[in-house]
Amino acid sequence: MAEEFEVTPWNVEGKVDYGVLEKQFGIKELNKELLERLKKHTGDLHPFIRRKIVFAHRELGWLLDEYEKGNRFYLYTGLAPSGEMHLGHLLPFMFTQWLQEKFGAEVYIQLPDEEKFLFHTYKGDAKPLEEYHKLAEKAALNIAAVGFDPKKTRIFMDTDYAKTLYKQAVRVSSRITFSVVKDAFGMDNSANIGWIFYTSMQAVPAFLKSVEVGHNVPCLIPLGIDQDVHFRVARDVIGKLGYYKPAILHNKFLPGLGGDAKMSQSADNPLNVIFLDDSPEVVTKKINHALTGQQSTAELQKKHGGDPDKCMVCQYYKFLFEPDDTKLEKILEAERRGTVLAGEHKADLAKRVNRFLEDFRKKRELVGPKLSQFIKAD
Amino acid sequence: MAEEFEVTPWNVEGKVDYGVLEKQFGIKELNKELLERLKKHTGDLHPFIRRKIVFAHRELGWLLDEYEKGNRFYLYTGLAPSGEMHLGHLLPFMFTQWLQEKFGAEVYIQLPDEEKFLFHTYKGDAKPLEEYHKLAEKAALNIAAVGFDPKKTRIFMDTDYAKTLYKQAVRVSSRITFSVVKDAFGMDNSANIGWIFYTSMQAVPAFLKSVEVGHNVPCLIPLGIDQDVHFRVARDVIGKLGYYKPAILHNKFLPGLGGDAKMSQSADNPLNVIFLDDSPEVVTKKINHALTGQQSTAELQKKHGGDPDKCMVCQYYKFLFEPDDTKLEKILEAERRGTVLAGEHKADLAKRVNRFLEDFRKKRELVGPKLSQFIKAD
Repeated sequence: MAEEFEVTPWNVEGKVDYGVLEKQFGIKELNKELLERLKKHTGDLHPFIRRKIVFAHRELGWLLDEYEKGNRFYLYTGLAPSGEMHLGHLLPFMFTQWLQEKFGAEVYIQLPDEEKFLFHTYKGDAKPLEEYHKLAEKAALNIAAVGFDPKKTRIFMDTDYAKTLYKQAVRVSSRITFSVVKDAFGMDNSANIGWIFYTSMQAVPAFLKSVEVGHNVPCLIPLGIDQDVHFRVARDVIGKLGYYKPAILHNKFLPGLGGDAKMSQSADNPLNVIFLDDSPEVVTKKINHALTGQQSTAELQKKHGGDPDKCMVCQYYKFLFEPDDTKLEKILEAERRGTVLAGEHKADLAKRVNRFLEDFRKKRELVGPKLSQFIKAD
Repeated sequence: MAEEFEVTPWNVEGKVDYGVLEKQFGIKELNKELLERLKKHTGDLHPFIRRKIVFAHRELGWLLDEYEKGNRFYLYTGLAPSGEMHLGHLLPFMFTQWLQEKFGAEVYIQLPDEEKFLFHTYKGDAKPLEEYHKLAEKAALNIAAVGFDPKKTRIFMDTDYAKTLYKQAVRVSSRITFSVVKDAFGMDNSANIGWIFYTSMQAVPAFLKSVEVGHNVPCLIPLGIDQDVHFRVARDVIGKLGYYKPAILHNKFLPGLGGDAKMSQSADNPLNVIFLDDSPEVVTKKINHALTGQQSTAELQKKHGGDPDKCMVCQYYKFLFEPDDTKLEKILEAERRGTVLAGEHKADLAKRVNRFLEDFRKKRELVGPKLSQFIKAD
């Protein structure tokens, strides 16, 4: 039996086997043929795709069929804020922004400020709802800074956009029984009725555009694979309501610096996470504590080399900090051969991360005055 | 064992024993002392109170304590539309309007256009959501025609007012488990998640005023007793959120013409219900078919008399069509003594009902141009 792990929208634990998830969830690996088709339209492939970070899909083939018939799609993604944003949160947004650029697509970004409130009330450790709303407001700024086109992007918080969302969520919710969410999300009778209802709200942006324009518009949802369950439940319902089922692209999680499958601030290790507002000193300190695949001594490392798959420093280069495949391969090879030692390896990464964050925060300052162009509320 | 009956927000069946409900629900009869206190402020008592149609309460004493301390209350009631409005629907509104007049109180009227949609989707016989919204719009006009003060009354439909309602409903829903609604409403795992969530929406107007003004305002909810269950669930939660628990006044149901405990258009007998838009001919025909407490022949009736409690004609006089207690007593006494026969008894009532409806529809025409003053939407 494989090592046990859990992947839900509220918890990721254990060593995640993405191949097993693919089978469990009934999603498909992105094969060569599909990638060729995609590349025909995008010119190149995003590093996330080349490196199988974005690795699986639902009905991307159908989406491209429609696109090639002239039926343009829009993009939908989101984030449920529960704390400060960290590097791991950026992945779906960076990828969605790239898709927007390549396809000129509109983007809907949902910030469900109620979701984590409802879940944490269930767990018994919720902050007041207003705190989640404030976190969502901060998230909106970070997300806008990723580089979305303000003319083609709307960011909305559920409680501010509920006049638009609730009516459609009612239609979705009428066709989902408690049995279904119970099984899909592993709830029991002690779940609160807001948490039970919530998945209906997350379904809405996947067909909202079609409601708005009065005819069917294809939708593509780039998301972290832990969110797939919402659409396993909603896709059939959306179909029954008469809309296109959304296509989905799944990304893997950015691992924690300590080696956790998913960077998460709720992890026991406070050094596991790099927040977007960490100071250079804090970043350097955290990376110095990162798990590496190296041997126990410099001598052994030079002799046997390390394992890039187990080395978080290598993984971070792969995920975010070395877009050039040839250069990345050199970094991984150095790790394998033992020609780079942990100290310099980490120092280099820390420099790159700090440069990335500095650059990000500059963009964020620039986007600040334009933020209202992105925000949609009733 | 008492005859079996059921009273839920979605179904009323059997011969309702209001005394049993009082015990089951843990509500209290309106006693003499409370009525004296109420009368001190209102000058007189509404016929519904004098005739024990409004018969029970939760914490009316507390509400009057607050009022006497200068802490004024607001009123909240509502109607979930599922079809055309009939006479039975008017009771809580007529009573609420009277309270508004006597206390100068603000009134919040909720028209949850999603409620019956969600329930009927569960039952498998729902109309599209838009149809319930149209019914709610028609209901708004009928309700305004009851005579509410447009300056002190807001009428809102859930899907149009969801930006305001949903945020607060989330807070309520976070503290209600599926176990609780399952037991309270008799749901099972095949209930849809919208129906499960809905009770949170109905709770909101009971404390919304307090949210708006930033301090606690007492709330009084006049309602049909079938709605009490929502507040059995919500009152504790509202208290935990830091607001006053609402006080409640319960009314009995206007019976159907055929003797059903509650006038309802879903009953098998289409002659059971008098709609607000029934023509005089239809009203007369329906009343001619009404159940009376009379003996099987005119001879026997003259000899033994009838039973006003079982005579729907008498009941209709008591509920709505003879405000004067002395005159009502004469009507009931004539029934008891057998000095009035079914034919004239019914003909008289039909005249009164038609006069009432004609008058009501005139008022409705007059209120039409002012309706927008009542409607609140986000």
